[in-house]
Amino acid sequence: MLNWYLQSGKESDVVFSTRIRLARNIKNKPFPGNSEKKDNEIIVEKLEEITPKLGYGLNITRLSKLDNLTRLSLIEKHLISPEFALDKKQTGAIIINEEENICIMVNEEDHLRIQVLSSGLELEHSMALAREIDEKISSLINYAFSPKYGFLTACPTNVGTGMRGSIMVHLPALTLTGNTKKVLEAINNFGMNVRGVYGEGSKSQGDIYQISNKQSLGITEEEIIKNLKAIAEKITEQERLARNYLGKNRIELEDRVYRAYGTLANARLLSSEEAKDLLSSVKLGTDMGIIKELTDKKVNELMLYTKPANLQKYIGKDLDANQRDIKRAEVVKQIINK
Amino acid sequence: MLNWYLQSGKESDVVFSTRIRLARNIKNKPFPGNSEKKDNEIIVEKLEEITPKLGYGLNITRLSKLDNLTRLSLIEKHLISPEFALDKKQTGAIIINEEENICIMVNEEDHLRIQVLSSGLELEHSMALAREIDEKISSLINYAFSPKYGFLTACPTNVGTGMRGSIMVHLPALTLTGNTKKVLEAINNFGMNVRGVYGEGSKSQGDIYQISNKQSLGITEEEIIKNLKAIAEKITEQERLARNYLGKNRIELEDRVYRAYGTLANARLLSSEEAKDLLSSVKLGTDMGIIKELTDKKVNELMLYTKPANLQKYIGKDLDANQRDIKRAEVVKQIINK
Repeated sequence: MLNWYLQSGKESDVVFSTRIRLARNIKNKPFPGNSEKKDNEIIVEKLEEITPKLGYGLNITRLSKLDNLTRLSLIEKHLISPEFALDKKQTGAIIINEEENICIMVNEEDHLRIQVLSSGLELEHSMALAREIDEKISSLINYAFSPKYGFLTACPTNVGTGMRGSIMVHLPALTLTGNTKKVLEAINNFGMNVRGVYGEGSKSQGDIYQISNKQSLGITEEEIIKNLKAIAEKITEQERLARNYLGKNRIELEDRVYRAYGTLANARLLSSEEAKDLLSSVKLGTDMGIIKELTDKKVNELMLYTKPANLQKYIGKDLDANQRDIKRAEVVKQIINK
Repeated sequence: MLNWYLQSGKESDVVFSTRIRLARNIKNKPFPGNSEKKDNEIIVEKLEEITPKLGYGLNITRLSKLDNLTRLSLIEKHLISPEFALDKKQTGAIIINEEENICIMVNEEDHLRIQVLSSGLELEHSMALAREIDEKISSLINYAFSPKYGFLTACPTNVGTGMRGSIMVHLPALTLTGNTKKVLEAINNFGMNVRGVYGEGSKSQGDIYQISNKQSLGITEEEIIKNLKAIAEKITEQERLARNYLGKNRIELEDRVYRAYGTLANARLLSSEEAKDLLSSVKLGTDMGIIKELTDKKVNELMLYTKPANLQKYIGKDLDANQRDIKRAEVVKQIINK
């Protein structure tokens, strides 16, 4: 089974991926941020106990067993947060399966962050799967839950459903036509957060933006999904209109995407930042049927393995920045030509 | 027989081409610049009469029979000068062979400008051939010659031997290391002119420079050749040293030349200026054995057929600037992939 981030999904010409995240905490236990290490240890031990009963091929691994490179590679795949990776109290763990489409962070900001990830636009399926897992866990441990507020969470913005739905969208044409800001501001006014790919405060890289619901209280999970789906459809429509517009100057667009492809395929030194920019243009080219030399899977591989930690994972050893730039260019050629 | 400019010659990693030019005038006839049209007409008729006797597959063609595109393509091949191409008095003609390594301009600044061209460094052979042709012509017409000054010419700088030897050199590594100016100034002090490729006052394009002797009076043809050869050897040595120096940062050099190759091979719109710059890097790459995808002949073809007029000759029709940029990119791909 291909890992989720190498697959193509619905509307994946614009919607890169979907994530559903449920924040859950165990009843009568302090939140990880305000607790002693021994309190957190009780949580992780409890999860170690119940994980074998969950199914889905899930296994629990303590972060302390993972080297830095592996942690960084998980951040790059958007499976864990940078803060969580630091594992300050040495009680962090992840419950994850082979396909990596289910990843539960243990002792992040909340005791549990159940995440279901998918390529393309898959809000309903992802929510259904997240709920299934959530129900299994709740049959094995008691959640902190208030009949008035819903699920209790460390940060008040997550109280209620404890749910955050998010999509990552690729908006190269809106960027090229200078309309990204306008479109993203409208989304923001619609009760959605817009962020760079590594969460709050980070800037967009390779024209990829993360859109997620702001509200989790006083709204049902179905409403969150419905709103997010409406936004996804709107932004997909806008991006496709912008691509059609660019397509009217076909030769200029072809020139742009093929120059990016030519540089990517021929450079001998390639930084991760440049690779992101080039891949944004190349993905636009493949998604618009202009570049025929690459499959979607290859583009996904290129996007993953040009990231610093996943590059080193691919190569199988630690590399300094200069060695990475050399190896990145080699790996790009290997993937393109295989 | 391949045209001379598509061939590879001696030292052609640095010396692109060699030209020997002899300025000659017919006795007791006014120089073309100071004469009536009818005087010039007598000259061209005389040359039409003797050309069949010259051999070498030479044919005479009046410029008035050539369309603008053909004249421009001859300028781009450095076979005629831009001023001559204008053919103000309608009495210009060229005596040229199939290989285009012999090209005699009739009624340029002088009655005759005998030119022998070769790829690479070929001063002695070119001079020998120019002399042979010169002797043939002088057996058929009387030259304007003074026992004191030598051959008489329209411009005093050409009086004496009437000879100008020139080489076109490709100096990308000296340019990259910032040493071109220093080296070319030294050459200038050595009694040589350094110019951009289209003659006096023109700026260098694609790191190509033309070096020729200043003096033609009070010096023998052998001395001119000897000096020019010494200069050619010196500059070739300097450029190769600069290439070795760049080669120490092999990966950066490979990156530079392959990025140029990648852009050239993939662009869908290509101006002639950008093509020149890219080809300068690509030629450096092939000459240093870095780029394996291209033969020398292909590089020569790319250098020729990306020039505006020769591009249109290749395509077989007149194109405006925008169409040229599209077709240029197509032709580049055709040549690379054939």
